Amino acid sequence: MAIADAIESYLAKIAFNADGLVPVIAQRHGTNEVLMIAWMDREAFINTMRTGQMTYWSRSRKKLWRKGETSGNTQTLREMHIDCDGDALLALVDQVGPACHTGEMTCFFEKLKS
Amino acid sequence: MAIADAIESYLAKIAFNADGLVPVIAQRHGTNEVLMIAWMDREAFINTMRTGQMTYWSRSRKKLWRKGETSGNTQTLREMHIDCDGDALLALVDQVGPACHTGEMTCFFEKLKS
Repeated sequence: MAIADAIESYLAKIAFNADGLVPVIAQRHGTNEVLMIAWMDREAFINTMRTGQMTYWSRSRKKLWRKGETSGNTQTLREMHIDCDGDALLALVDQVGPACHTGEMTCFFEKLKS
Repeated sequence: MAIADAIESYLAKIAFNADGLVPVIAQRHGTNEVLMIAWMDREAFINTMRTGQMTYWSRSRKKLWRKGETSGNTQTLREMHIDCDGDALLALVDQVGPACHTGEMTCFFEKLKS
């Protein structure tokens, strides 16, 4: 099947780390605001590409986690990019509600004064 | 000294991983383009905050690496943000030339078609 073939070809490009994970930057489509960074394993990547709903691997809970599954603050994938050495992904997403569990739009709301 | 105190207080907020590293997303000031992701150890963070020049820890070369030290494509820090659980940084930077060693502006130039 064409979609499955495409996903397999993408998986072959991704340099997962020793734990089988790759970091994913979620960026808001339109504003280009960086919302959060999280991790995907192979299954999370496959689920995300198949469903269009951002799905991560929770390192603390050690399980797949579809963003917004409890909060309702889902992320719909618009574009997936991979970096030049294949060890990081950048996802452009449509964010429903705030991305951060604190209620802030972005998890990077705290600025360190320089 | 005030600057050193500030840097110490920031270091205390950062949840470095088991290897003593934290991922840093570099985002272009003005356009909000995500340029790259790299890693900092404590010393790289201190150097970055002191000099205003983005300095990373190279996991492959196992040494500090001031962005642009060989290419001239430096990154000057404009704002440093930390995420809600302290385990990732987002740096807004002024990028000289392309950020990517391939000559592309961003390391995330490859889009995976969905």
